[in-house]
Amino acid sequence: MKFKLYYWPTIQGRGEFVRLALEDAGADYVDVARLSKKEGGGVPALLAMLAKPSSPVRPFAPPILTMGKLVIAQTANILRVIAPRLGLVPKDEATGIGAHALQLTITDFVAEVHDTHHPIGTSLYYEDQKDEARVASKHFRAERLPKFLGYFESVLAANAKSKGRHVVGRASSYVDLSLFQVMVGLAYAFPKALRRLEKDIPLLLALRDRVAARPQIAAYLGSSRRIAFNEDGIFRRYPELDP
Amino acid sequence: MKFKLYYWPTIQGRGEFVRLALEDAGADYVDVARLSKKEGGGVPALLAMLAKPSSPVRPFAPPILTMGKLVIAQTANILRVIAPRLGLVPKDEATGIGAHALQLTITDFVAEVHDTHHPIGTSLYYEDQKDEARVASKHFRAERLPKFLGYFESVLAANAKSKGRHVVGRASSYVDLSLFQVMVGLAYAFPKALRRLEKDIPLLLALRDRVAARPQIAAYLGSSRRIAFNEDGIFRRYPELDP
Repeated sequence: MKFKLYYWPTIQGRGEFVRLALEDAGADYVDVARLSKKEGGGVPALLAMLAKPSSPVRPFAPPILTMGKLVIAQTANILRVIAPRLGLVPKDEATGIGAHALQLTITDFVAEVHDTHHPIGTSLYYEDQKDEARVASKHFRAERLPKFLGYFESVLAANAKSKGRHVVGRASSYVDLSLFQVMVGLAYAFPKALRRLEKDIPLLLALRDRVAARPQIAAYLGSSRRIAFNEDGIFRRYPELDP
Repeated sequence: MKFKLYYWPTIQGRGEFVRLALEDAGADYVDVARLSKKEGGGVPALLAMLAKPSSPVRPFAPPILTMGKLVIAQTANILRVIAPRLGLVPKDEATGIGAHALQLTITDFVAEVHDTHHPIGTSLYYEDQKDEARVASKHFRAERLPKFLGYFESVLAANAKSKGRHVVGRASSYVDLSLFQVMVGLAYAFPKALRRLEKDIPLLLALRDRVAARPQIAAYLGSSRRIAFNEDGIFRRYPELDP
């Protein structure tokens, strides 16, 4: 099965959760917008995919993944569909339901991370909402960050099947990969706030390190396919938001 | 199959998307937190459900739906799981994937609606972020509202199977019910902004009216089970945010 991923070519963003799953599984995929325009890639290919009629439903926004004629939108939906095919989640329905609930909670958290630097409007520049971002980030660091990380830590601790090593089931899943991405993103964007919480999240930190050491992930992180964090993505380093 | 819904008892909120599906299907369900404390209900029952270990995963937030021993979190995940069992979505995988992508796009939109009155922090009062809410709402009304509604209108128009009457497949689905909820919520919170867009969204308006006339939905809307919109929910009427 050949997958085609359509996502912005210069940021990790929401597409990175899909890239990590495809990379960890060694899946055969093309990151279409990162191909050159000569090769049929670039942002024009992404915009064309967003504009054209698709089956079953035209997507609202990237990331988009295609499998043959099937066009799948929404990060968590893409992961839910490909994970059983790639061996990245147990196939029983209950575990799949729990894994998807966790991924959607990660989705909510990632949206809140984004809103720390864009509390007023996504179409405005950060520079036009810096004051509001400072206040929003203060609340994020004081309340939302410990609340979400404490929750994920507790889910790891409660997963007796893996002795706290994996968030669902007995083995590595796509949700482990997504939690890795959240943890390295936070370390980039909010290093000081994260350091203050470290003593409360030993299982999350250990999970992050184990995922980073997985052979396919380590190879990916060391390759040019891994885009560096930058200030166009979701996790942005603005020191004034992490004093 | 008896369902138990756990959600805040005094608001429509995110739980309403689940309530509408259960009501439309005539499902056997209990809205636990709306029972009296004597009956084992009230907010304490909801908080107890949030605190206790659950299988497969303890939820982060309401709404939560239980089916026997299975505990399901996240609105769109609940709908995805119950819809095929209730006849609220075609059973083929492709349509299910498209319906879920749409529901997740509704989820994103609803979060943006919430953030119009809470751009800075969910734990703060509206009164503490009124100025920021005014600016955020201006951007929402000018850009996000027409963008999302235009998208849903285009998906209705593209669904040749139903001649624009339903958003997926040939018949009513849970996504139709959710779009109804979005439309009546917007009419409550942003009546003026919505009126200015009406000429561009005839299919959405017709869908809203058809859903309201469905016998089970009409009976529900006329019952005491339907909580009125109010300023504790997601869709809030603050005239200064819809000038």
